Amino acid sequence: MSPKALDLDRIVKVIADEMRQRTDRGKVAHYIPELARVDPRQFGLAVIDVDGKVAAGGDADVPFSIQSISKVFTLTLALGMIGDRLWRRVGREPSGNPFNSIVQLERERGVPRNPFINAGAIAVTDVIVSGHQPRESLGEILRFMQFIADDPAIAIDQAVAASEKRTGFRNTALANYMKSFDVIENPVDFTLGVYFHHCAIAMTCRQLAMAGRYLAHGGRNPSTGLSVVSAERARRINALMLTCGHYDGSGEFAYRVGLPGKSGVGGGILAVAPGKASIAVWSPGLDEAGNSHLGRIALERLAQATGWSIFG
Amino acid sequence: MSPKALDLDRIVKVIADEMRQRTDRGKVAHYIPELARVDPRQFGLAVIDVDGKVAAGGDADVPFSIQSISKVFTLTLALGMIGDRLWRRVGREPSGNPFNSIVQLERERGVPRNPFINAGAIAVTDVIVSGHQPRESLGEILRFMQFIADDPAIAIDQAVAASEKRTGFRNTALANYMKSFDVIENPVDFTLGVYFHHCAIAMTCRQLAMAGRYLAHGGRNPSTGLSVVSAERARRINALMLTCGHYDGSGEFAYRVGLPGKSGVGGGILAVAPGKASIAVWSPGLDEAGNSHLGRIALERLAQATGWSIFG
Amino acid sequence: MSPKALDLDRIVKVIADEMRQRTDRGKVAHYIPELARVDPRQFGLAVIDVDGKVAAGGDADVPFSIQSISKVFTLTLALGMIGDRLWRRVGREPSGNPFNSIVQLERERGVPRNPFINAGAIAVTDVIVSGHQPRESLGEILRFMQFIADDPAIAIDQAVAASEKRTGFRNTALANYMKSFDVIENPVDFTLGVYFHHCAIAMTCRQLAMAGRYLAHGGRNPSTGLSVVSAERARRINALMLTCGHYDGSGEFAYRVGLPGKSGVGGGILAVAPGKASIAVWSPGLDEAGNSHLGRIALERLAQATGWSIFG
Amino acid sequence: MSPKALDLDRIVKVIADEMRQRTDRGKVAHYIPELARVDPRQFGLAVIDVDGKVAAGGDADVPFSIQSISKVFTLTLALGMIGDRLWRRVGREPSGNPFNSIVQLERERGVPRNPFINAGAIAVTDVIVSGHQPRESLGEILRFMQFIADDPAIAIDQAVAASEKRTGFRNTALANYMKSFDVIENPVDFTLGVYFHHCAIAMTCRQLAMAGRYLAHGGRNPSTGLSVVSAERARRINALMLTCGHYDGSGEFAYRVGLPGKSGVGGGILAVAPGKASIAVWSPGLDEAGNSHLGRIALERLAQATGWSIFG
Repeated sequence: MSPKALDLDRIVKVIADEMRQRTDRGKVAHYIPELARVDPRQFGLAVIDVDGKVAAGGDADVPFSIQSISKVFTLTLALGMIGDRLWRRVGREPSGNPFNSIVQLERERGVPRNPFINAGAIAVTDVIVSGHQPRESLGEILRFMQFIADDPAIAIDQAVAASEKRTGFRNTALANYMKSFDVIENPVDFTLGVYFHHCAIAMTCRQLAMAGRYLAHGGRNPSTGLSVVSAERARRINALMLTCGHYDGSGEFAYRVGLPGKSGVGGGILAVAPGKASIAVWSPGLDEAGNSHLGRIALERLAQATGWSIFG
Repeated sequence: MSPKALDLDRIVKVIADEMRQRTDRGKVAHYIPELARVDPRQFGLAVIDVDGKVAAGGDADVPFSIQSISKVFTLTLALGMIGDRLWRRVGREPSGNPFNSIVQLERERGVPRNPFINAGAIAVTDVIVSGHQPRESLGEILRFMQFIADDPAIAIDQAVAASEKRTGFRNTALANYMKSFDVIENPVDFTLGVYFHHCAIAMTCRQLAMAGRYLAHGGRNPSTGLSVVSAERARRINALMLTCGHYDGSGEFAYRVGLPGKSGVGGGILAVAPGKASIAVWSPGLDEAGNSHLGRIALERLAQATGWSIFG
Repeated sequence: MSPKALDLDRIVKVIADEMRQRTDRGKVAHYIPELARVDPRQFGLAVIDVDGKVAAGGDADVPFSIQSISKVFTLTLALGMIGDRLWRRVGREPSGNPFNSIVQLERERGVPRNPFINAGAIAVTDVIVSGHQPRESLGEILRFMQFIADDPAIAIDQAVAASEKRTGFRNTALANYMKSFDVIENPVDFTLGVYFHHCAIAMTCRQLAMAGRYLAHGGRNPSTGLSVVSAERARRINALMLTCGHYDGSGEFAYRVGLPGKSGVGGGILAVAPGKASIAVWSPGLDEAGNSHLGRIALERLAQATGWSIFG
Repeated sequence: MSPKALDLDRIVKVIADEMRQRTDRGKVAHYIPELARVDPRQFGLAVIDVDGKVAAGGDADVPFSIQSISKVFTLTLALGMIGDRLWRRVGREPSGNPFNSIVQLERERGVPRNPFINAGAIAVTDVIVSGHQPRESLGEILRFMQFIADDPAIAIDQAVAASEKRTGFRNTALANYMKSFDVIENPVDFTLGVYFHHCAIAMTCRQLAMAGRYLAHGGRNPSTGLSVVSAERARRINALMLTCGHYDGSGEFAYRVGLPGKSGVGGGILAVAPGKASIAVWSPGLDEAGNSHLGRIALERLAQATGWSIFG
């Protein structure tokens, strides 16, 4: 069932060609000024199989703002720090609401529904900060990203981080709201500062696919054999990505693509074909639910061509 | 990775033994009088692999009310009738609300979020009724169930259906509410009558696991090779089960079990291990989200022992 | 401060003249077919002062469907039957939602926020039915209306009642929803049947103003001196009309008009100037909140000209 | 109908005596540490009639934190500054939600339902700040309070203001949320700083009743004849107090007391008997809706004894 490496190169090329030609590209996120300036005509795709072979196409080596995709990695880190105690502060259910909704928080007394909506990711970041200075926490996140992507050059785009901080009133509202229920333990400014900065990490599709390998391969880096998390934890993070990874478009993504994935408003999506491959796609235009329009279509093509859907 | 048939017998036995001894059994659904009388000490499990081999344990041959599990089969039928036009009347996103919530319907103008919450399943039933007499539609549903389970003895428990009808005020509210938005096309009584009756179908774990084989095997009955739906449709129904199959406990089920599944308030769960097996479990006691308490734990054990999780 | 009877005639005439000429008339209710056929160019106004003197203008003698205005009278009747026990089944707070919203019912377990939203009025009607046949209950309501309006000719418009019944899916949803919480005690069909019929009572402005006198005059008919309710109860019904009488436009009505009032989607409004007058106005076109557009403006003019605002 | 001045003294004394003896006192607000320390056994009442005669009882000369009562005065000021343009930023309808709810803000895109819930009052404060330094705006508010109360000694309790600022996460959430919709124009810190401080103004019942006279007397100070606002504006502020002045207990207050009023979580209530008197009551214990428990009962007694209800 798994396609040969040779086929993968061809599949990626065909997809990148189709995406380059499509005129329906969605809308670039406008609420962060720095992101609004990104050229919507770009498209990149990188697939790394279990043998470490990379198939890349389009703008796979252009860095973009990973935004909410960083939530997968901060979740991994926070679980490493406090384990299942994390789930006292954040739930594991799809929210049925947009990514930045505050309605659910009121109904459920400040506990976000899952770690992939903004409120939940801020609560997860708060676990990582946990008494440290923002600079230290951010350093830890960045070193983790560099380690799993095997690339010390990964960095934060400070212009995006600053832009985000200046305009992040809704996230500030979410954080203060949770603070009023003691779900946030550190000073709101500390936690939000770290949150805004880890969302502003810039990566290429190739780097992102590298970083996601542990989720595709039972918690281990398949090249080095080094364990990042246990196999069970990798499975569970994949499950959370499947049910909650695309905000209020998660059901649609599962229905069409059939792979665990996490999107960001920068237009990137990290997807995981368990046992098969780690995949990163990027195209800046978003659909109505805030997920990359061409990114989702490209993954749908890829899943069809490879038979990688987890649903049969 | 896939366990041998021999192992499967042993695994099922071990699980059935553990479940028989547990004292935490959840609470039997009380809102339908007929269901409230069921003995909570019962537990059944049946697993049918790709070769048709059955491993069964506990009360796997005691019939129970399949309730919402029937929604998987009516969805299959309705898609067969009108294809993707179905999605004009019902969405594909997790609801973030209890199974019988009406709040979301108001916000989204009468269109239910997915076919597995009550409102969505009523809308799907309305598609099946579509101008026919309730008796005919019900006959069609029943024949379909008998066909896929390869068992002409499957029948409706009329006492449960009558009990449901007498007490189904909330479902009557949902149906009338959708009717006010023209999402229901037939007389409300017709559609609800069919809905109450197909929820009252009684099946054993063994029969239910038989009925689910097409979802595990690319839309086909693996014994006869006969196609029930296309492979793509089977995948998509599995995806919907994964994201929406356990009401507001769907995220938790994906996180812990890692298999597509659909639960009913009768205590049954149909689960699918794509390419591997069709699984039915039953234990009447429910957890807070309305899903079988021991059923979920049993499936968690099974997925761990077999390595069947779709998440790696 | 109170204008002389002579002035009142002139004030009513000036207002009726202005309203006849205005071209902004709102939109006639379309969801009940019979109401949708009413000519939007009509306008009527009747004011009855403490001495029983009537000032009437425009189409004050054309009957119209009183619709939700009937809720004031059924509330009066139900309070007469079971007193403050009524408040176990319905609240006394503005709803912050449209008149036919079901959202609040879910949040507050089937107890409507006040007796003037549809759900609340259905619950009040259920108190009146209370074990009787619908025909008897309806007879009782009608006799009460005839008594307080001192006019045995007041009747139900059967065509409107039938139209309402055929299309009242949303009200049927509300009633079944409350029934699921045991807030409705009689068969849903009984209670809804009575509700649809009392909403279909037809009255003229003159009749309606007559019926409202007890609210303006301490619970008594000022002509006969006969008591309908205690002075305290009249005050309290007025308070409920002020805070809840115009659905989600109640705040606006209080702000602009400053008189207790109750509107109906037939375009009528009953208003009360405590100690001064009972007022009925009618114009079929509605504003966005479902209240008579010209009716509200006319009452604003009247309150300004007479100084009758209860707010100073 | 209006009681003589002599009677008023007696009525106030009887009420103060009853309240001193009652053991049901509600619960002192605990979420602001400084307020939590107030002795719940205190009760004060002051009534000032149209002739300027004061009837005072209990702890009418003990200063307390006026909290949300300040919203009446900031609304008056903001309307004086920009008139009806204010209503572009805040609505005029009861909210149907607790005072610090954020749910409604999401549904209505950042526009608070009325100026008396926290979000609405923050938006009103933002109008007053309007480009000025917080210190200047606060000075203006304070001078206005001193002017209408005719008492230059009125001051802010800095300990309460500081306490509020340290713990005001939910208000910070509301302000940032509105800022994300551009409903707040000044830096969030400026507006919130002024808001926290004007809520921390300390006044006695006597001072507060003095300050409220313009609302009872057509916008004028009845002693000096000086106009504070137009008669129409005074009426409209009274109407808003009636429909929205007691959060989600506004309907209940209208039903039981029948006077426009505004409560604060410090336990104070300002009430207005149009044309008759300005009234201030204070008792620190709150009911479930956050309004003074004994304060409301005392006003119910007063309205009964005086016949001042605006509802007849």
